[in-house]
Amino acid sequence: MNELYHKIIESIEAPPKAMEESIQHKIDMKTKPLGALGTLEDLAVRTSLIQQTLDPVIKQKNIFVFAGDHGIAEEKISAFPAEVTPQMVLNFLGGGAAINVLCRHYKIDISVIDIGVNYDFEETPGLINKKVRKGTRNFAKEEAMTRQEAIEAIEKGMEVVLEQYNHHPMEIIGLGEMGIGNTTPATAIISCVTGKSVKEITGRGTGLDDTGLNHKIAVLEKALKLHKPNPEDALDILQKVGGYEIAGIAGAVLAAASKKVAVVLDGIISTAGGLIAGLLNPEVKGYLFSAHASVEHGQKAALAALELNPIVDLNMRLGEGTGSAIAINLIEGACTIMREMASFEEAGVSNRE
Amino acid sequence: MNELYHKIIESIEAPPKAMEESIQHKIDMKTKPLGALGTLEDLAVRTSLIQQTLDPVIKQKNIFVFAGDHGIAEEKISAFPAEVTPQMVLNFLGGGAAINVLCRHYKIDISVIDIGVNYDFEETPGLINKKVRKGTRNFAKEEAMTRQEAIEAIEKGMEVVLEQYNHHPMEIIGLGEMGIGNTTPATAIISCVTGKSVKEITGRGTGLDDTGLNHKIAVLEKALKLHKPNPEDALDILQKVGGYEIAGIAGAVLAAASKKVAVVLDGIISTAGGLIAGLLNPEVKGYLFSAHASVEHGQKAALAALELNPIVDLNMRLGEGTGSAIAINLIEGACTIMREMASFEEAGVSNRE
Repeated sequence: MNELYHKIIESIEAPPKAMEESIQHKIDMKTKPLGALGTLEDLAVRTSLIQQTLDPVIKQKNIFVFAGDHGIAEEKISAFPAEVTPQMVLNFLGGGAAINVLCRHYKIDISVIDIGVNYDFEETPGLINKKVRKGTRNFAKEEAMTRQEAIEAIEKGMEVVLEQYNHHPMEIIGLGEMGIGNTTPATAIISCVTGKSVKEITGRGTGLDDTGLNHKIAVLEKALKLHKPNPEDALDILQKVGGYEIAGIAGAVLAAASKKVAVVLDGIISTAGGLIAGLLNPEVKGYLFSAHASVEHGQKAALAALELNPIVDLNMRLGEGTGSAIAINLIEGACTIMREMASFEEAGVSNRE
Repeated sequence: MNELYHKIIESIEAPPKAMEESIQHKIDMKTKPLGALGTLEDLAVRTSLIQQTLDPVIKQKNIFVFAGDHGIAEEKISAFPAEVTPQMVLNFLGGGAAINVLCRHYKIDISVIDIGVNYDFEETPGLINKKVRKGTRNFAKEEAMTRQEAIEAIEKGMEVVLEQYNHHPMEIIGLGEMGIGNTTPATAIISCVTGKSVKEITGRGTGLDDTGLNHKIAVLEKALKLHKPNPEDALDILQKVGGYEIAGIAGAVLAAASKKVAVVLDGIISTAGGLIAGLLNPEVKGYLFSAHASVEHGQKAALAALELNPIVDLNMRLGEGTGSAIAINLIEGACTIMREMASFEEAGVSNRE
C-alpha cells in the first residue's frame, strides 16, 4: 500500500554539483560585466545544474492548478463564499481566469485538478478528476482529513505530474491552486513547520478587513492548540490542519523532483505545499524556485525555511499559479541567455582591464 | 532651425483622465479579489489610459539602443576600456548580446543607433546612423558638447522613433544604451536635476572597486563645480555634462509621447534621458514606465523626480535595454488580462460577500 508515495520520495536526489564551476564560468564569460544580469544569472545557473548541461532548454511548460474545498470555510475566515471554488474551476475550464490569460500569453499548458472540490463536475476537457473527498473537514472542530487521505492526496498529485511527464516530458512545472479559505490551512502549516506564531504570519487572504483578520487569527490559534501537529511529521500536519490541494501540490513537487524537473512555487498556498514536500525529502529543495513575493507574509517564513528567494515582487495575491507563469517565462529567458548570448571571445569584445 | 525639436516638444499632451473611472471599474470587475493582480493591474490601467481604450493592445514593440562614446572615459571612471563601445555595437548587430537574446525571446524589434560612437561603422542592416560626433568631449576639462549638438542629438533621437512610427506604428517602445563611461554623465545629470549630492548617488557602473568609486565621485564633484549647470535648463545640463545617447533617448521619449506611445525606461542611463525629457515637457510623465530597479542607486533619485516606481527588481545593472525588454512583456501581459479575463458576471462567479 502507498507504493507510489514511498517510491517517489525515496527516488529523489539533489542535482549533482560537479558541473557548478563550468556553468558559472560560462555565464561569467558572456559579454557583460560580471554578475550584471543579476537574478537572471542565478536562474540560468540553477536551471543548468538541474538539467546537468551548459545549454539548458525549456520547451514543455506545464502549470497545474489544484482545486479543493475547506471545511474551515464554515468559520468565516474568507471574504468570498465557498461556492466560488467550483465557480472558479469552471472559469478556468472556460479560459476566462487570470491564469488562463497568462498561460496563453506565455505558451504554458494548463491542467486543472479537482482534488477535493465540494461539487460534482461533468467530464470536461482540461479537468483532471483526482477527487479525494468533497472538501476537508472543519479543522476548527476535528482533523481536516485522515492520514490515509493525506497520503492519497499526495499520491494523486504525484500521478498528475507523472501522467503528464510520461505523455510529454516537461522541463518545468508551475504550481497553482484554487480553494476558498485555503490561506488558513497554509498559514497553519507554515506556523507549525517554521515555529512562527500565527499572529505574526496570518494575512488577509482574498481581502479580510481588520475584524476578519483578528477572527482568522483566533480560529487558527484555537485549532493549532486543539490538534498540536508534530512539526516534523508532514502527514500529521496535513491530516490535522492541511488541505487536499496543498497535499496534491506537495505530491506534484516530489514527483517533478524525482524526474529532475524544475518546480516553480507560486504564492503562500503552493509554498506551504513545497514546505510539506521538503519535510518528506529535503533534497527537493534543489529543484525549487519561488515565483514571487506574495502579499501574504506567511510565505516569507516558508521561503526562509526552504532557503528560497522570490524571483519578482509584483504585489500580487491572487494565487491560481499566476506568479508561477510569470516566473517560468523569466527562467525560460535566462536559459536562452545561457545558450545564445555570445562570450567575450566569440564576439571579439575586450573584457575589463 | 531646430523646427522638429520645438514642434515635438510643444505637441505633447498628457493622456486625458476622463476614462479613468471606467478603466478602473473594468479591472475591478474581473474574477479576482480587488487589486489581487497588484502591479499588473496598474500596468493595465495606465496602458488603457495611454491608449484611451478599455481594450489595450500591444502589437508592435520596439527597443532602441542608443550608442555613444564619452570623453570623460579618459579619466578612468569605468572598469572597461572605451573600445568596448564599438565592439558591443558590433555584438548587437551580430545578435549576440543579452538584449538581442531577450528581444528574440519577447518578439521585440531592436534597432541600434550610432549617435556618437568613436568608430566608423560600415553600413550594416539594423544599424541606424545618426552620428552627431565621435564621442563627447571630456567634461572634466571642457563642456561635453555644444548647445547645438545637444539639440541635434535630441532631434536625431526623435527622428529614430518617428521614422519607425511612420513605417510601422508601435504601441510601446523600450530604451536602452551602450557607452563606456555613461553612468558618469547620467549621475551628473541626476545630481543636477534632483539636487542629490554626487556622493549619495554615484554607483560602481560596470564594476569599479572602492578606489575606482571614490575617484569617480571626485571627478564628478570637480566637473559639476567647474560647469555649474542650470538645474532647470535641460540643454545646459546636456551641453555641460551630458552624453549623446542620453540626449538621443530624451528625444526618443519626447517623440513617442507626442505619438501617444508608451515608453519604458531601463536603468540609470535611460532614466537620466527621461529626466531630461521631463524637464523639456513634464507632460511626458504620463507615458513613462520604469522597467526595473537598477543596482545604480542614482536611478532611484531620478525615478522619484519622475514619480515612477520600477516594475521589477532583478538586481540587474547591464543596460542595453535588457530591463525594458522584460517590462514590455509584462505590460503586454497586463493588457491581455484587461482584454481577455472574464468578469464576475461573464463567468457566473460570486463576488465577495
